[in-house]
Amino acid sequence: MDEQQPQSTAKLWGGRFDRPTDQAVEAYTSSIDADRRMVRQDITGSIAHARMLGRQGIIPADDAGAIVSGLSRVLAEAESGAYQLDPRLEDVHMNVEARLGDVIGGEASGKLHTARSRNDQVALDVRLFTLEAVQSTVRLIRALQEVLIDLAERHADDILPGYTHMQRAQPVVLGHHLLAYVEMLERDAGRFADCGQRTAVSPLGSGALAGVPYPLDRIYAAQQLGLAAISENSLDAVSDRDFIVEYNAAAAICMMHLSRMAEEIVLWSTTEFGFITLDDAFATGSSIMPQKKNPDVAELARGKTGRIYGNLMSILTILKALPLSYNRDLQEDKPGFFDTVDTLTSTLDIFARMLPATTFHTNRMRAVARANYALATDVADYLARKGVPFREAHHVVGALVGYAVREGRELHELTLPDYQRFSPLFEADVLTIDLVDSVAARDVPGGTAPVQVQAAVQRARSRLEAHRAAG
Amino acid sequence: MDEQQPQSTAKLWGGRFDRPTDQAVEAYTSSIDADRRMVRQDITGSIAHARMLGRQGIIPADDAGAIVSGLSRVLAEAESGAYQLDPRLEDVHMNVEARLGDVIGGEASGKLHTARSRNDQVALDVRLFTLEAVQSTVRLIRALQEVLIDLAERHADDILPGYTHMQRAQPVVLGHHLLAYVEMLERDAGRFADCGQRTAVSPLGSGALAGVPYPLDRIYAAQQLGLAAISENSLDAVSDRDFIVEYNAAAAICMMHLSRMAEEIVLWSTTEFGFITLDDAFATGSSIMPQKKNPDVAELARGKTGRIYGNLMSILTILKALPLSYNRDLQEDKPGFFDTVDTLTSTLDIFARMLPATTFHTNRMRAVARANYALATDVADYLARKGVPFREAHHVVGALVGYAVREGRELHELTLPDYQRFSPLFEADVLTIDLVDSVAARDVPGGTAPVQVQAAVQRARSRLEAHRAAG
Amino acid sequence: MDEQQPQSTAKLWGGRFDRPTDQAVEAYTSSIDADRRMVRQDITGSIAHARMLGRQGIIPADDAGAIVSGLSRVLAEAESGAYQLDPRLEDVHMNVEARLGDVIGGEASGKLHTARSRNDQVALDVRLFTLEAVQSTVRLIRALQEVLIDLAERHADDILPGYTHMQRAQPVVLGHHLLAYVEMLERDAGRFADCGQRTAVSPLGSGALAGVPYPLDRIYAAQQLGLAAISENSLDAVSDRDFIVEYNAAAAICMMHLSRMAEEIVLWSTTEFGFITLDDAFATGSSIMPQKKNPDVAELARGKTGRIYGNLMSILTILKALPLSYNRDLQEDKPGFFDTVDTLTSTLDIFARMLPATTFHTNRMRAVARANYALATDVADYLARKGVPFREAHHVVGALVGYAVREGRELHELTLPDYQRFSPLFEADVLTIDLVDSVAARDVPGGTAPVQVQAAVQRARSRLEAHRAAG
Amino acid sequence: MDEQQPQSTAKLWGGRFDRPTDQAVEAYTSSIDADRRMVRQDITGSIAHARMLGRQGIIPADDAGAIVSGLSRVLAEAESGAYQLDPRLEDVHMNVEARLGDVIGGEASGKLHTARSRNDQVALDVRLFTLEAVQSTVRLIRALQEVLIDLAERHADDILPGYTHMQRAQPVVLGHHLLAYVEMLERDAGRFADCGQRTAVSPLGSGALAGVPYPLDRIYAAQQLGLAAISENSLDAVSDRDFIVEYNAAAAICMMHLSRMAEEIVLWSTTEFGFITLDDAFATGSSIMPQKKNPDVAELARGKTGRIYGNLMSILTILKALPLSYNRDLQEDKPGFFDTVDTLTSTLDIFARMLPATTFHTNRMRAVARANYALATDVADYLARKGVPFREAHHVVGALVGYAVREGRELHELTLPDYQRFSPLFEADVLTIDLVDSVAARDVPGGTAPVQVQAAVQRARSRLEAHRAAG
Repeated sequence: MDEQQPQSTAKLWGGRFDRPTDQAVEAYTSSIDADRRMVRQDITGSIAHARMLGRQGIIPADDAGAIVSGLSRVLAEAESGAYQLDPRLEDVHMNVEARLGDVIGGEASGKLHTARSRNDQVALDVRLFTLEAVQSTVRLIRALQEVLIDLAERHADDILPGYTHMQRAQPVVLGHHLLAYVEMLERDAGRFADCGQRTAVSPLGSGALAGVPYPLDRIYAAQQLGLAAISENSLDAVSDRDFIVEYNAAAAICMMHLSRMAEEIVLWSTTEFGFITLDDAFATGSSIMPQKKNPDVAELARGKTGRIYGNLMSILTILKALPLSYNRDLQEDKPGFFDTVDTLTSTLDIFARMLPATTFHTNRMRAVARANYALATDVADYLARKGVPFREAHHVVGALVGYAVREGRELHELTLPDYQRFSPLFEADVLTIDLVDSVAARDVPGGTAPVQVQAAVQRARSRLEAHRAAG
Repeated sequence: MDEQQPQSTAKLWGGRFDRPTDQAVEAYTSSIDADRRMVRQDITGSIAHARMLGRQGIIPADDAGAIVSGLSRVLAEAESGAYQLDPRLEDVHMNVEARLGDVIGGEASGKLHTARSRNDQVALDVRLFTLEAVQSTVRLIRALQEVLIDLAERHADDILPGYTHMQRAQPVVLGHHLLAYVEMLERDAGRFADCGQRTAVSPLGSGALAGVPYPLDRIYAAQQLGLAAISENSLDAVSDRDFIVEYNAAAAICMMHLSRMAEEIVLWSTTEFGFITLDDAFATGSSIMPQKKNPDVAELARGKTGRIYGNLMSILTILKALPLSYNRDLQEDKPGFFDTVDTLTSTLDIFARMLPATTFHTNRMRAVARANYALATDVADYLARKGVPFREAHHVVGALVGYAVREGRELHELTLPDYQRFSPLFEADVLTIDLVDSVAARDVPGGTAPVQVQAAVQRARSRLEAHRAAG
Repeated sequence: MDEQQPQSTAKLWGGRFDRPTDQAVEAYTSSIDADRRMVRQDITGSIAHARMLGRQGIIPADDAGAIVSGLSRVLAEAESGAYQLDPRLEDVHMNVEARLGDVIGGEASGKLHTARSRNDQVALDVRLFTLEAVQSTVRLIRALQEVLIDLAERHADDILPGYTHMQRAQPVVLGHHLLAYVEMLERDAGRFADCGQRTAVSPLGSGALAGVPYPLDRIYAAQQLGLAAISENSLDAVSDRDFIVEYNAAAAICMMHLSRMAEEIVLWSTTEFGFITLDDAFATGSSIMPQKKNPDVAELARGKTGRIYGNLMSILTILKALPLSYNRDLQEDKPGFFDTVDTLTSTLDIFARMLPATTFHTNRMRAVARANYALATDVADYLARKGVPFREAHHVVGALVGYAVREGRELHELTLPDYQRFSPLFEADVLTIDLVDSVAARDVPGGTAPVQVQAAVQRARSRLEAHRAAG
Repeated sequence: MDEQQPQSTAKLWGGRFDRPTDQAVEAYTSSIDADRRMVRQDITGSIAHARMLGRQGIIPADDAGAIVSGLSRVLAEAESGAYQLDPRLEDVHMNVEARLGDVIGGEASGKLHTARSRNDQVALDVRLFTLEAVQSTVRLIRALQEVLIDLAERHADDILPGYTHMQRAQPVVLGHHLLAYVEMLERDAGRFADCGQRTAVSPLGSGALAGVPYPLDRIYAAQQLGLAAISENSLDAVSDRDFIVEYNAAAAICMMHLSRMAEEIVLWSTTEFGFITLDDAFATGSSIMPQKKNPDVAELARGKTGRIYGNLMSILTILKALPLSYNRDLQEDKPGFFDTVDTLTSTLDIFARMLPATTFHTNRMRAVARANYALATDVADYLARKGVPFREAHHVVGALVGYAVREGRELHELTLPDYQRFSPLFEADVLTIDLVDSVAARDVPGGTAPVQVQAAVQRARSRLEAHRAAG
């Protein structure tokens, strides 16, 4: 970029050029679509820059004042929709400056660009955009966690089969299952917060690449924008897009989590599982098959994971092996990034609406939780608690289950003598092992015992509170 | 998808649903943006379907006739811009059908959807779109090849350094260098053509997933659309998006080739290389640094490679581990695909315009081609032709070059006695080895000898002719 | 690469270098692990090259003869395992040449490298490897197709629910479902064959980058190797790795198909679906949960999809924006590629063994196929065949299903008066619509009617025969 | 995984299985290659688990003691190389347990697996491995930073052209350029540290998926291993691989930075740039072109970037849409991850060795820094400081440069009257603008003024010190 001029007849850099830019080139190189998303950030950044220029005496104080109030007016116009970017003015920076010139005259507006280049300006704009994206993403994550915690509390005693390899493995409670996603989202929020910290750095003052020959107060400008730090190196500052990659990487992990939840929503909605029914408002039907009720939102969320993975790969490819400092390739940083932000935030939002409206068929869950020898592990643990080495206990129960399978009976359909054929240590109490005992026995922090799940709900809620207080 | 209905108050599948769709869900699941690109294909497909239905007597002949002429009118409206999709009508299919109903009345228009589902309909639309994309891509590849062949012919004698590891290695001619890209593009065109063959298959008649209970003439409908074959399996037909992945993979390879050319344009435009000057119409300046002339088009092309790689990864991710048959995830196939088509075709087009307008500094190229002992290999070959085993010959010349480096002289600045210190086989003619001889000596098919390059130009041109005649 | 020398004390290129290579550099730059896979190809290529050199009189005929017989001996040693690559000799080329020197003496062996560079040599080796990979991949695809076709024939009448959105949609026959994968694999085989055609091109004669100054007969050498064509441009030939990307892209699509089958194997193995039971030989158990039988092979196949996607992204990244011609980055082409070949071929092979040993619970499939109003579409088609516009017919049946849902009955549990409440066109025969009729009615090419499935089996089998005869 | 047994004749889960595992299945499902890397972590984890079991009285104290000392012996054997994994024993867990049985007898060793599953055990092993990888990665980043800071200090006054769009833009000092990479690496180190914090969480006690029915002291076990926290949810704990994705994402960004440095090393090593000469120990030659000196290490580093991008895509693909909890797909997490760790750490290490041995041609850099109107921005700033609005100042200088270009002169070759033709504000001091002034003028924090660079060196060094003290 560094400071190309608008496609007006009289380009600023026209002096060295004999022929106008090819029309196809203008279309190919235009950034205006992406720039529409950054009007607010661009103006906010310019206001901070102008204040600082005036305060430092780099431009006259009244020019600075005129610029600040002029920009405030342009910002209001933009937010009301009264002001639209003109594609012929190439990018957001030139558009805003042109509109400012209309408002306060070219003499003053021409001074705004003192001690600044479009290279550090666009770097600032994207950072401000990213910071806002981080904040809204974290807010939506917290909202979804809250939904899940509420559901987990309600279902802290409802037993369903726990799965490994998609085979029923051991019974767990539904609340425990839901809290697993709360933990994933907690790590996600942490990653976005870390990304935010590395983003909140002002590049202003880096100029085109080398810094600027004016006595700037870079820290003051940064503070105006709520940025905690200033960049340490101008060459790095104009070519750094780490924060975009980092947001995208955090988004890919978060969307991967949501794709796992989506997969379970799709599975649990099948007739075969029958664990949930989606609300009509979050499903669609089929005109050709009137009996259908499809989990489209979950399917689309699962599919949209591909978009975010693709956008991550895209920005990594763009940055690979770019020499310092600014290269025009960097303009391609935004379309995929904006798509990632939109995709992730809309998915978080729609999940937070969809889950509370979903019906959980807890009777069905419990009914299938006991089948398939789901308590075999508990029987083995029974023996182990009587001193049988674990490996041996499991060997005994393996044989017992094999016997039951051949007999066509479930474990609770066996008799004590059946048990004792495999170990003399079995006593009558082995017959009382049931689902409720099984889950209650996993009474270790992080385990599925309802009492632990209740405690986990409380801890998760306190953690949310603490974040809210801090954030 | 299978046949969800528009968001009108009276949804077709409303019978089973008690509550209307959530607003956010409608936005989240809408495909209307992508669908705008497929209006023509959708109507064309419907015309073929209606003709076949009428011909087979599945619907009355006059209804079929009314539908065909009604759809032709809607198509004309759409192409003139008079008709726009209404986002409330969910997708392109429902939009077109609704407009058809306005034009010919609901009684007749309601029969169009006989023996068809939105699942096979959208599969057809995307295939038709892909076929057109393949055709325009191949056409643009051919145009760029033609530009390169013309340039290669003009520069069949102009010598520049050939590089390996970005170190000057052996002299080559510029025409030879340019023809390397013609070969890459030839493979690209082949890949797109192969993709096109696998795309030209009609899924019509697959219904929602199982086929339809009507006596269709699937081959007739396919022929109406210029499709060479009909799909063999209805479950596969509604869930297959291979052709999109394949187009995207071919595009990724083609864009990789263009990124290599872009890298060389950027490199050759540097002051350090100084091999080319871009036309003003294909470069931009800098207002902050008035001396700059930046190769933005090439930089952006290099960056846009990331988009296409990302889109490929996106569609592969979407399709991973989807069970049969149609799943709503498939709706996410289009945005990335359309972006790939636009990105690739615009890049091919702009390169074909930019290259003829570029100045090649052949004097500068030749001036630097001889430096850095570029003819050392030729000296080794000189010895090898006198019967010295190749390994030994190169060992001798390695020592010779080492000597010259230490002496601070180029090879052509050494004397015959200098040479003979390293081998008695050197005779006076070794001193006459020069650039022209060096390239002329590589007189093997595919080699850089000008005579071979001229022959290669002729072959490439004939090949283009043959494609044009066939295509 | 171009011709770096082994790490012996006396490096061939030592003349210009004052200090030996750093140890860590030797480890970092070594290609020996990948090269072990290409010993055969390297020797085969050298034999063809030596024959051609002798035939053209470029080296003496008896030297050529000695080289050819010496290389044959080294090849035999390598295949018997008697000869191992020595990592200190850097790469496969230097290793083979060194061993050849041991066998026939350095005077003759030193002439093998005449008119050749390691750049065209490695390009040839990888092409030969790729061609073999293509052949074995296609063979394994054909074998898996054959397994699926046999199964499809056996299950041409067995009805199971067909799914869209993972919701039961319409009944289909199992043979039809299995044939869907035969079609996917057919396209895969086509892609690999196309890739093979673009791979079967000899780069020999391209030298380091510019061609070679010897009167080669490139076509003769290519024919010795069974290659259909010679490369058209030497710069392209040494820097082209398209065939690796193309194999990887075809493999990504093929593995995506296998991941879909894997997903269905996992799903169908669940207690909830209960459609299949894997053979003990293709499943694993759990010591902690003795009742478990896990579909590990399918899970791992699903996971290994990630490897192949990753390898595709890797090679595309490597090639992005590389200037011509050879760059050392290209050495990184092989590890991911070899991993892709191994992963894909082992997965194809294990699926072809696993499927015939799988038990399909066709009774269970049929039992659930009728539930959930699966024949609603057939009822709508019933009305449409009586002249009701399709849209209206579906609206009627939507209301009918809504009524049945509220009544808690399936469609076949309704009475004729129930039907007639929604349309007077319903007659007694509507009550006879059943699963067998439903699938039989889809009697269109590519449809699920058993008669069509039988026909499709025959076509698929003939196609296989034709490939076998041709290939 | 959950607890599959070794391929011995008597498998623990043999009870339910009638047929042995297929040979190809054993090869396809084996994890032994990856597991070799985790022997130490596995034993360390088991020692902590056994200590805790004994302390809690879950197993007898003397059994716990025997296990701990037995495991210590196995660890010593493994580290000395005396003990190798036996592939027939399936995985590292079964191997270690079997060896422990040999050492202390099966009665005691069989108790080690109490209250544990292979699902939480492998989750622990990978976390411990990741933590060590994080630590060594950060250590290598710090070492490379130190090298760069030392070089930056040495070159704080050496001027070279700064580039945007690979066009010379403004002069900067070499030390400033090098510090840009120090900043990138600083963010990298931060990302790895953040990843480490989220990794240092003990999953022990999660069992197969539901927690375990024993009174564990999970915190005690975690402390034994130096882990700061315990996992909050057992379902999450056994299926969470976020830390692997996060390491891989941080590695992708870090490697992207190194690829940029690699690109500059390749560029600067060209004859055209001529800015650096690599040490012989870090370059290779060519036997066919004896004059070559190739930057192979930098090229390979650039290429290896593809590996890490690919590995990131691989793990993201693996995890997409996996339902809870453990699925065998997760076994595919390690090969790509280990490759990423090895690739990144070896690249960091070799760069830290290569850079100090590189010769920087500072005279050449300075000689070219002034050419191409590199001081045009300074002339514009000259006018701006005299009150000319920035936009106007640049317009004036644009015209001035255009004039100079047409005259074929550099700016310092113009006369004062030449200047004054474009603005009366030019005075004699404009002729004194030179390179030294230009860089000195950018005297703002983060700017290229040597005084700022020196200050930045000091800050960077203090920061390193602080990290060292903290870490």
